[in-house]
Amino acid sequence: MTRAFLSDNAAPVHPKVWEALRAADANDAPYDGDALSRELDARFSDVFGREVATLWVATGTAANCLALATLVPPHGGVVCHREAHIEVDEGGAPGFYLHGAKLLLAEGEGAKLTPESIRAVIDPIRDDVHQVQPHAISITQASEYGRCYRAEELAAITSLARSRNLGLHMDGARFANATAFLGGSAADAAGDVDALSFGCVKNGGMSAEAIVFFDPSLADVARYRRKRAGHLQSKGRFLAAQLIAMLEDDLWLANARAANAAAAEIATSCGTRLMHPVEANELFVRLTPAEREALRGQDFGFYDWGADAARFVTAWNTRDEDAHALAQAIANL
Amino acid sequence: MTRAFLSDNAAPVHPKVWEALRAADANDAPYDGDALSRELDARFSDVFGREVATLWVATGTAANCLALATLVPPHGGVVCHREAHIEVDEGGAPGFYLHGAKLLLAEGEGAKLTPESIRAVIDPIRDDVHQVQPHAISITQASEYGRCYRAEELAAITSLARSRNLGLHMDGARFANATAFLGGSAADAAGDVDALSFGCVKNGGMSAEAIVFFDPSLADVARYRRKRAGHLQSKGRFLAAQLIAMLEDDLWLANARAANAAAAEIATSCGTRLMHPVEANELFVRLTPAEREALRGQDFGFYDWGADAARFVTAWNTRDEDAHALAQAIANL
Amino acid sequence: MTRAFLSDNAAPVHPKVWEALRAADANDAPYDGDALSRELDARFSDVFGREVATLWVATGTAANCLALATLVPPHGGVVCHREAHIEVDEGGAPGFYLHGAKLLLAEGEGAKLTPESIRAVIDPIRDDVHQVQPHAISITQASEYGRCYRAEELAAITSLARSRNLGLHMDGARFANATAFLGGSAADAAGDVDALSFGCVKNGGMSAEAIVFFDPSLADVARYRRKRAGHLQSKGRFLAAQLIAMLEDDLWLANARAANAAAAEIATSCGTRLMHPVEANELFVRLTPAEREALRGQDFGFYDWGADAARFVTAWNTRDEDAHALAQAIANL
Amino acid sequence: MTRAFLSDNAAPVHPKVWEALRAADANDAPYDGDALSRELDARFSDVFGREVATLWVATGTAANCLALATLVPPHGGVVCHREAHIEVDEGGAPGFYLHGAKLLLAEGEGAKLTPESIRAVIDPIRDDVHQVQPHAISITQASEYGRCYRAEELAAITSLARSRNLGLHMDGARFANATAFLGGSAADAAGDVDALSFGCVKNGGMSAEAIVFFDPSLADVARYRRKRAGHLQSKGRFLAAQLIAMLEDDLWLANARAANAAAAEIATSCGTRLMHPVEANELFVRLTPAEREALRGQDFGFYDWGADAARFVTAWNTRDEDAHALAQAIANL
Repeated sequence: MTRAFLSDNAAPVHPKVWEALRAADANDAPYDGDALSRELDARFSDVFGREVATLWVATGTAANCLALATLVPPHGGVVCHREAHIEVDEGGAPGFYLHGAKLLLAEGEGAKLTPESIRAVIDPIRDDVHQVQPHAISITQASEYGRCYRAEELAAITSLARSRNLGLHMDGARFANATAFLGGSAADAAGDVDALSFGCVKNGGMSAEAIVFFDPSLADVARYRRKRAGHLQSKGRFLAAQLIAMLEDDLWLANARAANAAAAEIATSCGTRLMHPVEANELFVRLTPAEREALRGQDFGFYDWGADAARFVTAWNTRDEDAHALAQAIANL
Repeated sequence: MTRAFLSDNAAPVHPKVWEALRAADANDAPYDGDALSRELDARFSDVFGREVATLWVATGTAANCLALATLVPPHGGVVCHREAHIEVDEGGAPGFYLHGAKLLLAEGEGAKLTPESIRAVIDPIRDDVHQVQPHAISITQASEYGRCYRAEELAAITSLARSRNLGLHMDGARFANATAFLGGSAADAAGDVDALSFGCVKNGGMSAEAIVFFDPSLADVARYRRKRAGHLQSKGRFLAAQLIAMLEDDLWLANARAANAAAAEIATSCGTRLMHPVEANELFVRLTPAEREALRGQDFGFYDWGADAARFVTAWNTRDEDAHALAQAIANL
Repeated sequence: MTRAFLSDNAAPVHPKVWEALRAADANDAPYDGDALSRELDARFSDVFGREVATLWVATGTAANCLALATLVPPHGGVVCHREAHIEVDEGGAPGFYLHGAKLLLAEGEGAKLTPESIRAVIDPIRDDVHQVQPHAISITQASEYGRCYRAEELAAITSLARSRNLGLHMDGARFANATAFLGGSAADAAGDVDALSFGCVKNGGMSAEAIVFFDPSLADVARYRRKRAGHLQSKGRFLAAQLIAMLEDDLWLANARAANAAAAEIATSCGTRLMHPVEANELFVRLTPAEREALRGQDFGFYDWGADAARFVTAWNTRDEDAHALAQAIANL
Repeated sequence: MTRAFLSDNAAPVHPKVWEALRAADANDAPYDGDALSRELDARFSDVFGREVATLWVATGTAANCLALATLVPPHGGVVCHREAHIEVDEGGAPGFYLHGAKLLLAEGEGAKLTPESIRAVIDPIRDDVHQVQPHAISITQASEYGRCYRAEELAAITSLARSRNLGLHMDGARFANATAFLGGSAADAAGDVDALSFGCVKNGGMSAEAIVFFDPSLADVARYRRKRAGHLQSKGRFLAAQLIAMLEDDLWLANARAANAAAAEIATSCGTRLMHPVEANELFVRLTPAEREALRGQDFGFYDWGADAARFVTAWNTRDEDAHALAQAIANL
């Protein structure tokens, strides 16, 4: 149990995903020529209620960077939050995939951008060749602090993006948790972005994420760049199978709801310790070193978050009793 | 059965690999901090009889390029065969991973390089900044035409590499087949290269290849670059599990022997139709369009190889009766 | 005199260029905001008889690569001759500027491409992500062997490019020599390419080349990339001045005609020694080592060209008596 | 006169530089094989009192980026000030030259870094592959606000760099002004950095800057990368000539002293309007829009600096009477 709240990355694979993987284990065309991979576009088009083009990749980092590479030239810039995953946790992958394009860092509560915080970054940029010009905006749904963009917030950012001729990308590593929180409509949770990194691994998958292009023409370039990045797996059917299993009967939403519920349960005992409202499956909780030690002494696993806080992450498989026990333990501190 | 000889990429996953995958499905540290990933160095060191550092990645393209990136600066060049996979089949991935470094194309029978063919490329390069200087050699074991480098051939190339201060990389997408053919010693089949892409997917794996660094210090840089390329999977334990399953009781060699035997069986009926001696699990067979049509009419699946030939690939699961049937069918043409 | 036929790169700067440089030495706006830089588009539009956008840069390598970067994405390829300057003499600059895009090497007599030789390269490329797809063609006018493309040859290549949706770039390091040879019309010598590297340094300039975009919209991206490559000089007026001086009263053509005439004079004595017809200002002459030594003993400077030949280059300032003397010396061998 | 205080980039070329340029206009070996280019190492070694290797390039951006590229791998980071030229004014060139390496932004008064401000950036970086690791520090002498690093400040930064195994680069676009201010010793002003971009264009040159490598072995790689970046000019003798002219009889220091003196003269009348102490040739002066309009009405040229200030730059050729007149005009506001 010691890793129970460490990361949704550490969680196991959902039984339905295992079933789908086993079912995919027949001879089929290599790469993405198999029946499952060819089914992806239709499946995701159903989920979003409009025609999309979808590519599987193995990681969120690859998904984010391949998506952004379709929106931003090497000499351009991407506006993102100062604490965005692409800025702080991807080992410089955007610099690699975008050939040196620049991340332009904006502020915003809860790691969420706003039209104002975006304008604060882009308005001072002189329109001359000495400065890197913005070409896209990247937002994270749910954000790195577990906050969700509401429909009207998305609309406002989209409107700004359109008016400035900027592409719009959404890092949806925990898109399922956001969608579950926001009411269950994938289309609403995605708003009108150009490309979405649709997370699956943290939500019960093994090794597949999806890049959903709402402008299908972008996918053509992404397919070449996926191969060029060594991300076109030869037995791609196993990635497609995971994604389809997730979509089947809305397993992705069920899993996310379970994780969110566990987080909400824990949140009830945190009170003012919470650094951010809990809207998805992450909790950032003010805890002294001694308090953290006490919790670890009770066999709870989690990461420190700076000197005075901890991050707890629930997952699709978090047991009620574990969430309850953690809530209790925090309440008892 | 129609895809039976299409590609070893199309083959299913070996039952032992499935077992290992299921066994890995417990909470563990994310990325490569899990117990299985941390075991890889020791396991591969056993296989090669010396200390190596090993990284998992999802594809052979990523393995080749991450390995080469440790040996070649962006302004350098890599000598490889004109028909090397990195040159003709990786969508320009070396150009991406090596930041524009150049492939310097050499000749050689059976897609194998020789000291002479390498020298024919590098000797005319003037030692000045106007020309891209060679920094490494990449060879493929077994080669793109299913040919294996013997120990003395490897020694001669290594000797040249050392004398010219060139790194040496081996693309071992079918290293197992080569090792099986050469007698079963991994160390002998690898010779004294600096880095080896150790194939697993074509040999019964699902989605894992290994990069084996015989100079462990190279692995440190490769780890950063793997993350930067979006190839550090968060549930890396599932990749490590596949590789360990393959090494366990030499499953990798057993699988390769099975594939090689099936290829050898088919070869017996091909006579002068064979474009290359069959040393691994690929056959390049001269067949007219009419002959290919006849075979396909008998439900044999394979790729055309130019206008007048076909490529047949066997795999770990090729059934004796299928190999025999194909041999018969070719004999009957 | 010992360097007289070594390289047009070694030749001095023309007096009119010096005059223009001195005249430009007044305070003016930095970078390319000065009056001369802003005059370039109009001047070159006059020369080509249609609206063009023009950027100065310091070298032909930068000109070629910045031009190509507007036509080819990082995952694309450029068809060029196996002996093209961008392939053999630019230190891998295309790999750098194009972020790893690939040069696809074609054959052709005299280092000239033909529709047939281009098709021989691009037709076998499978339209799938495993192979780098062609996005542009680059030709050199005059070619690396001093050969000129005639109007109908350019038209045939352009027609192929258009039909395959390929961009077309012309390396015109010696465009002046070609234009002079072809009759003096810049428009005819450039045909219908998308971008031209217009050489000036070899033709009496000091440090300026021009990139001429026949589709002016391409120049916008090139301006950003020029800055990003460190090629936006802060006293850009000195580069613009050189180019304008060259265009003034067709100095560029006068200089080229002088160089061509000197080469023609020398050619008269070479007979079957000539490896290529002499159409511009380069001669490739079969000469044994002993013969070369003899010529050097008479104080003629030139580069060896392989083991059995030499390259002689004339320039705008080659003196009649020197050309004559060399012709005599070769005749006397 | 309207551009007199706009930029030292707009200033004319010094007569001694013109002389040197003319003197260099004889046939010599192309690229950097000429006598002047080969003299550079010795000349700069004299200036710094130790063996250095020196390359000419056309711009400060190219100098900075080529220098940094020898110190930082593509997956690494460079600590620099938030207002460093490489961060805000080079159009993303570091991202291009360093293949996506990251600038890590630090604070510091007057655009100067301190050990504390550097540690504030690098200490929180976790030593794992998810975060870009620092590989070098870049400082600017004089800084972007015209401030100079004293010997002890340089020593402290160097000491930190050494202890963390970080390379150290100095952007010396106005190194001459800093050296003049600090007492005239180039060695003292450079401290113990690994590579210095030695400015010449702003100080009376036309088109040449130098990269000085205090570890000469770094220059070998830089030579290849210079060519690869299209910065190896074919008539390189004209760049070497400018640099040598500058060093001759310490013209560089004389020019810088003249510019500094003019700035100091103007500073006397600025009082509390000054945003930064004036140590080199730049003044950042608080001026309302109305005040700026008044000055422009008197024919003074300068750039606005945000909404409430202006930047004045003096140069080697700023006339006493102009400096005096500006001082008066500001005093009279």
